[in-house]
Amino acid sequence: MIHEECGVFGIFGPEGTDAAAATYYGLFSLQHRGQESCGIAVNNQGDVHVYKDMGLVSDVFSQPVLDSLTGRAAIGHVRYSTTGQSVRENAQPLVTRYSKGTLAIAHNGNLSNTLTLRQQLEDQGAIFQTTIDSEIMAYLIARYRSQTETVEEAVALTMEQLEGAYCLLVLSRGKMIAARDPLGFRPLCIGQLGDAIVFASESCALDTVGATFIRDVEPGEIVVVDKNGMRSLKSHCHGRRHHCIFEYIYFARSDSKLDSVSVYEARLRAGRLLAEQYPVAADIVLGVPDSGLDAAMGYSMASGIPLVRGFVKNNYVGRTFIKPTQSQRENAVRIKLNPVRSSVEGKRVIMVDDSIVRGTTSARIVQLLKKAGATEVHVRISAPPFLWPCYFGTDIPSIDQLTARQHSLDEICQMIGADSLGFLKLDSLHEMMGEKEKHYCDACFSGLYPSLDPAAENGLVYAMEAR
Amino acid sequence: MIHEECGVFGIFGPEGTDAAAATYYGLFSLQHRGQESCGIAVNNQGDVHVYKDMGLVSDVFSQPVLDSLTGRAAIGHVRYSTTGQSVRENAQPLVTRYSKGTLAIAHNGNLSNTLTLRQQLEDQGAIFQTTIDSEIMAYLIARYRSQTETVEEAVALTMEQLEGAYCLLVLSRGKMIAARDPLGFRPLCIGQLGDAIVFASESCALDTVGATFIRDVEPGEIVVVDKNGMRSLKSHCHGRRHHCIFEYIYFARSDSKLDSVSVYEARLRAGRLLAEQYPVAADIVLGVPDSGLDAAMGYSMASGIPLVRGFVKNNYVGRTFIKPTQSQRENAVRIKLNPVRSSVEGKRVIMVDDSIVRGTTSARIVQLLKKAGATEVHVRISAPPFLWPCYFGTDIPSIDQLTARQHSLDEICQMIGADSLGFLKLDSLHEMMGEKEKHYCDACFSGLYPSLDPAAENGLVYAMEAR
Amino acid sequence: MIHEECGVFGIFGPEGTDAAAATYYGLFSLQHRGQESCGIAVNNQGDVHVYKDMGLVSDVFSQPVLDSLTGRAAIGHVRYSTTGQSVRENAQPLVTRYSKGTLAIAHNGNLSNTLTLRQQLEDQGAIFQTTIDSEIMAYLIARYRSQTETVEEAVALTMEQLEGAYCLLVLSRGKMIAARDPLGFRPLCIGQLGDAIVFASESCALDTVGATFIRDVEPGEIVVVDKNGMRSLKSHCHGRRHHCIFEYIYFARSDSKLDSVSVYEARLRAGRLLAEQYPVAADIVLGVPDSGLDAAMGYSMASGIPLVRGFVKNNYVGRTFIKPTQSQRENAVRIKLNPVRSSVEGKRVIMVDDSIVRGTTSARIVQLLKKAGATEVHVRISAPPFLWPCYFGTDIPSIDQLTARQHSLDEICQMIGADSLGFLKLDSLHEMMGEKEKHYCDACFSGLYPSLDPAAENGLVYAMEAR
Amino acid sequence: MIHEECGVFGIFGPEGTDAAAATYYGLFSLQHRGQESCGIAVNNQGDVHVYKDMGLVSDVFSQPVLDSLTGRAAIGHVRYSTTGQSVRENAQPLVTRYSKGTLAIAHNGNLSNTLTLRQQLEDQGAIFQTTIDSEIMAYLIARYRSQTETVEEAVALTMEQLEGAYCLLVLSRGKMIAARDPLGFRPLCIGQLGDAIVFASESCALDTVGATFIRDVEPGEIVVVDKNGMRSLKSHCHGRRHHCIFEYIYFARSDSKLDSVSVYEARLRAGRLLAEQYPVAADIVLGVPDSGLDAAMGYSMASGIPLVRGFVKNNYVGRTFIKPTQSQRENAVRIKLNPVRSSVEGKRVIMVDDSIVRGTTSARIVQLLKKAGATEVHVRISAPPFLWPCYFGTDIPSIDQLTARQHSLDEICQMIGADSLGFLKLDSLHEMMGEKEKHYCDACFSGLYPSLDPAAENGLVYAMEAR
Repeated sequence: MIHEECGVFGIFGPEGTDAAAATYYGLFSLQHRGQESCGIAVNNQGDVHVYKDMGLVSDVFSQPVLDSLTGRAAIGHVRYSTTGQSVRENAQPLVTRYSKGTLAIAHNGNLSNTLTLRQQLEDQGAIFQTTIDSEIMAYLIARYRSQTETVEEAVALTMEQLEGAYCLLVLSRGKMIAARDPLGFRPLCIGQLGDAIVFASESCALDTVGATFIRDVEPGEIVVVDKNGMRSLKSHCHGRRHHCIFEYIYFARSDSKLDSVSVYEARLRAGRLLAEQYPVAADIVLGVPDSGLDAAMGYSMASGIPLVRGFVKNNYVGRTFIKPTQSQRENAVRIKLNPVRSSVEGKRVIMVDDSIVRGTTSARIVQLLKKAGATEVHVRISAPPFLWPCYFGTDIPSIDQLTARQHSLDEICQMIGADSLGFLKLDSLHEMMGEKEKHYCDACFSGLYPSLDPAAENGLVYAMEAR
Repeated sequence: MIHEECGVFGIFGPEGTDAAAATYYGLFSLQHRGQESCGIAVNNQGDVHVYKDMGLVSDVFSQPVLDSLTGRAAIGHVRYSTTGQSVRENAQPLVTRYSKGTLAIAHNGNLSNTLTLRQQLEDQGAIFQTTIDSEIMAYLIARYRSQTETVEEAVALTMEQLEGAYCLLVLSRGKMIAARDPLGFRPLCIGQLGDAIVFASESCALDTVGATFIRDVEPGEIVVVDKNGMRSLKSHCHGRRHHCIFEYIYFARSDSKLDSVSVYEARLRAGRLLAEQYPVAADIVLGVPDSGLDAAMGYSMASGIPLVRGFVKNNYVGRTFIKPTQSQRENAVRIKLNPVRSSVEGKRVIMVDDSIVRGTTSARIVQLLKKAGATEVHVRISAPPFLWPCYFGTDIPSIDQLTARQHSLDEICQMIGADSLGFLKLDSLHEMMGEKEKHYCDACFSGLYPSLDPAAENGLVYAMEAR
Repeated sequence: MIHEECGVFGIFGPEGTDAAAATYYGLFSLQHRGQESCGIAVNNQGDVHVYKDMGLVSDVFSQPVLDSLTGRAAIGHVRYSTTGQSVRENAQPLVTRYSKGTLAIAHNGNLSNTLTLRQQLEDQGAIFQTTIDSEIMAYLIARYRSQTETVEEAVALTMEQLEGAYCLLVLSRGKMIAARDPLGFRPLCIGQLGDAIVFASESCALDTVGATFIRDVEPGEIVVVDKNGMRSLKSHCHGRRHHCIFEYIYFARSDSKLDSVSVYEARLRAGRLLAEQYPVAADIVLGVPDSGLDAAMGYSMASGIPLVRGFVKNNYVGRTFIKPTQSQRENAVRIKLNPVRSSVEGKRVIMVDDSIVRGTTSARIVQLLKKAGATEVHVRISAPPFLWPCYFGTDIPSIDQLTARQHSLDEICQMIGADSLGFLKLDSLHEMMGEKEKHYCDACFSGLYPSLDPAAENGLVYAMEAR
Repeated sequence: MIHEECGVFGIFGPEGTDAAAATYYGLFSLQHRGQESCGIAVNNQGDVHVYKDMGLVSDVFSQPVLDSLTGRAAIGHVRYSTTGQSVRENAQPLVTRYSKGTLAIAHNGNLSNTLTLRQQLEDQGAIFQTTIDSEIMAYLIARYRSQTETVEEAVALTMEQLEGAYCLLVLSRGKMIAARDPLGFRPLCIGQLGDAIVFASESCALDTVGATFIRDVEPGEIVVVDKNGMRSLKSHCHGRRHHCIFEYIYFARSDSKLDSVSVYEARLRAGRLLAEQYPVAADIVLGVPDSGLDAAMGYSMASGIPLVRGFVKNNYVGRTFIKPTQSQRENAVRIKLNPVRSSVEGKRVIMVDDSIVRGTTSARIVQLLKKAGATEVHVRISAPPFLWPCYFGTDIPSIDQLTARQHSLDEICQMIGADSLGFLKLDSLHEMMGEKEKHYCDACFSGLYPSLDPAAENGLVYAMEAR
């Protein structure tokens, strides 16, 4: 599984707004972006309170906890950790007190110059209590704040130091500030709920709280909300966009629209493109739940081959689910994903999924279908193969674990036991996005990394091999 | 929502079988049949231990608890309660000690003569600590046991007293006994896992634990498993079958095959029949997750109208999910079910669901689609309207709350704000089941109740109005 | 450690009485009588609700739970289990439904004819879901109830079947019934709180809830409280009393007065008697906390040897306290009980404790004192040695584990490393009780068991060797 | 109640030392110093891991958690919070990463220049995530560390900035450092357990883990332990001592010896002094549990008036104990503390307690005794009256809430309903300590605050009125 690192939600409303409740439901709809920890910070007439813990939104927050988080403005966060640092200390939002007051910070993304910034700060006497980038941002904002009139200016100066992907929400005594990195890797949109302004990683969170979509935050934009309303700082807007393509392929919810592109439609188009690029004689098309389902639908539409339900997925996996032991391991996949025998028995099957990472899970799923009676299994992947590391917040395994790096297409096809295999072609991604030009980052597939470095050719630099 | 009352799972294996672990995964795959409480009883060399509590399987059982449940035979249970009796005392399996030893009992179903039996037993001095039918069964088995050579004979005598629907698993010192009521309302099947015999409410549980399907338990059959193998008592087999049709329409998992009928295929056929019975000019077909999805697929196949994803359902609802307050209630449906705007905007939509109970939820869902831009919403229900009470374990609201009882089809269509409405026709249910003859119970739709009463015409009696 | 099995509390008040809250604090003050499980049953206008679980009163009951237990009458129970049956099923009160309604039952004590009664009931078709005597009592009351006009008459008939020690509280639709066995082994008293009647195992519970002590329930008495007030049935009162002497020595709280004897004063007298019976030249007297402290005070008063604090006991032992591993075992006693070095260093010490069971704990405590610098340790035990089993609810180890049974006084003295050892003399127990005649049961010391058998000489029978 | 702020424990041993287990039991024995939160940090071959949470040691740490804390060196902390900041973020030890590695810090005490230091650090760009002094210390150590060869030198430089009371344990990659403020307000001692060195706030913790007492850390001393053994930095040792007198009167456990004075003996002497200073004709002496018991013993010894048990204290108060409502409030004290009627009935009573803060609790206790039949109640307090604020870590209420500040002795006597009242005389405190000279801080009684300011007369400065 490829994992996203985070989702953020924020709301700034007039007196009487139940900011914590809205943030609760907003985070609940962003839960797919991070299931490890979550938190909500509220501003209660200048005092900032935070509650955060390991676990799902619906497990961490009880009614009494929510009731204790009074205030008209709040930011919230859901997190998935990519490293061993799955500890409570790393949950967000991060609340810090500094010379000018208190700040709560939540962010989604990944800085690519973390180590450098951290070293610089430590050399100046900083101490770190977490391993998250938010703490670096908090330090920088605190330092620049002494030179600036406003928090947003300090955020702007901070952004000059940051490299990489980030969507940032900052809650101060009287303001909420949202900022997006200059290349716009991670999504962030703005909505309106009555007189309140809402920020969310995905538009589905706006729908969930009943807010109306206003617009996306622009790459590089700093949006400030306070009692005087909303305004923008665009000093870091360079007019470029490199949205992470994997948001559309896997991370985001189908009902979200990110930077004007419907996630569901992108997935349908990916399926259609696969049907064009890899046609095959077959009886049925099926998707691997949940993320392969939309592309399978597109494949079926384009090919005319009927779509069937291939699997039933068990969604009752609680946080204390007991994993099967080695001897039961054969059934490990089946416990969560059981094929519908009557769909596939005696059929030539086209199976659509969104990625092959190490290949072992794909191999097991193909085997399940064959055991259930499929005579052929043709695997279609709604993304190109992973070949390069991501420095912008997607948790792709290290290069030497990437199957597609080590093996030819034929080898992979054989490894997973498929009768044929096709990955979405790299040069058709813009079609998937419904765009003529390339406004996305596909570095994990292409090895071409977006950069603001003026020396970068067409704004892209080649991959460094070492991660 | 219409609720099932229970699911059962049992395994009897040779020395060394980890019966509790298999039961854990078996129950996990039956979780859709009951989310209120669950339990596992094991036979550890003659001693019966039980662990049960309120909650999901993955919340109730931890590794240490599972480790403490050693033994080669086990029965398990998941429960949904239909009354206010959602108390720990009512969790199953029920373990009782009586003159001949210890019994653990788990059952799925509902007796229709509970009150009579209870009164008779109380008059003879019985005391009751729960409000579940299992306790009545335990008393009867204990009493008959003094007159019989074996437990299975006591079970057979007990069955003479029981009226209604039940699938029963009994774990004694040296045996496991499975029994199914003479009309076979609730499903129960037999599988093999290595040298162990497995019983489960649905075949998907056999798949999940890696067992091979052998056959269904026959209506009225008593199956006994002990160290000498498996054998049958067929004294209560009358050659009749009245399987609950709602198992196919709603309760069971799509990947299960119950009494030789694939649930998934039945649902596909229901969708196809709806397309034939209620054709309409439309742009797209969509299903209401999760149970309307299969029938929607069938409707699309038969009509040629493309199937799209209409909604994203949020599956992260934990047991402590905080329900929206009145002021947020408008969004209550949306929090769990958000429409995919890009699918439905500007489209004439056919929306397939499995039932309309009170009508309020359907009205909200139709409204969501219209707000998302659907120009027309044609509702198709993959079942006939509910008109009669169920005495066999399905939790249908009381008659006066059934919309279809109070209102004409047109009125309901208007109430839910649909542009047209069609319920699957009662006389096509056998086609849905893929059968020429009627081997099922459709009393909740037809008012004709299966009965063993010799006076019953064609084995059916008319509805009593009062529930 | 010797353990008591239970404590009970009940309250029956006028409309508006918060019976559950009073029971909560009553049980809290009886917590020393049982820390394994606890429960409260309330009568809410005829409906009986119960909440019970493993754990301490303050852990099991939260404010919401207590709030849900509305009603003007309640009974409660704290339990210590003497066998392996430390399971939730065995928590009390036991609530049963029978032909005439619902009963909640809680009892303290131990029947000596459990097996016989159980066998008889099982032969008549009874099934048992617990291993507690209350279930037997519930069956008997239910059966006799069909022959009687009132519940209390059924209780009276039931008492004819019961042998052994019991204090019983029964809560029915309209009444509360308290009953005490004819020999009065276990304590039970009556108090008044406003217009409410209160029952409690010990008078300290009356103090805690602010009730005034009225009187003790007489041995054999059945007290009935309903809307018409309180009345007595004395059919089982034989004018005899055999109060368990160990309630005074160990079980009860020092601030309780049981059957007109102050526990604290009895312990003081035990200490005084020890000083007279076993004088020794020493510098200080100290008691082993908590139960040796009062007798140590008495020893000091009588001997004139100064009383000092010998140990600090750590009371922060929560329910999840991690026991030391084998390698840390040497400190196991010290973790809970650390000597005050400055008290004992260089001193000749008289150490007063309430019992020696296996001798290992005493040996460790003596060793702690010697390591802390005591030059001599003279052990004085405020009870005679245990020689016989108890059939009436005290958890004394089986005979072959009783040190005093296997070894002479000198041997025990040597085993525990003491410089001298004295047990309170058997024939001075009536002095400890402040009585001229013997109104107590001392069978565990004397082997003479109280009996209602007319053949019993002076109402006592000799010990049976086998337990 | 007067509260201490903290207790610390540390152990540094050879390979194979189970440092976390020793720290667990050490903290358990220091639980009386803080019940709000606790934590343990271990050094596992250079990696520092911490686990901390709100709650008692025996609730926070389970066996799996303890097992996960592997390492040969550990520091631990128990905390009581004096402010509203009872939040998880403030639990200790605090773990920070800085330019030279990782540090875990735990401390007991209170800086008197917190605000100044914090302001200075914030002005230099520091951000704070907690409100505890440890975070300030961590920053200072991190900053000085860039100028020094070793961590201990950075600690020494840090100490130049710190004013007030502190005992500090620092765990770095290869060392453990213990430091005590130059006036030695809070206790800290050194022990040996096999080849391991142990630090603890009180000697009772050494006893509990089986360690041998070596010596106290000197005021101002920095003790360093690493693989080469133990050594001292004494640059901050000024040869002065101002140990907090309230450690002896109330905070510390009776079995501890702090800076060569036995806590138990100091309390005995306080009682003896009270008997000399305030003799009265009475029948009995009793102490208010737990902290008045030792002084009551001393009073009895000196006066010859017999000591009795006056109260039974209920120790089963778990963390979720439900407080009585207003209507039950009268019994609030009695629920935890019930008088032994048979002790006090008809008696003239001397009641010894350790302090009167607001007077309300004392009034209730006196009332309990009178209701239980005491004819006279003479209150003796084993400390002088509180008149001044504490800046060194004792949580004394603000001046205007101190009864003794607002009222004369006679008024207080009347307020609490006593027949006479005596506070230990200020000028006899050195006798209580068994010393000729004053080596303690009694500022809360005397208003004379120890200071290192060269201008301070005799090392003492007068009280500032404002807190």
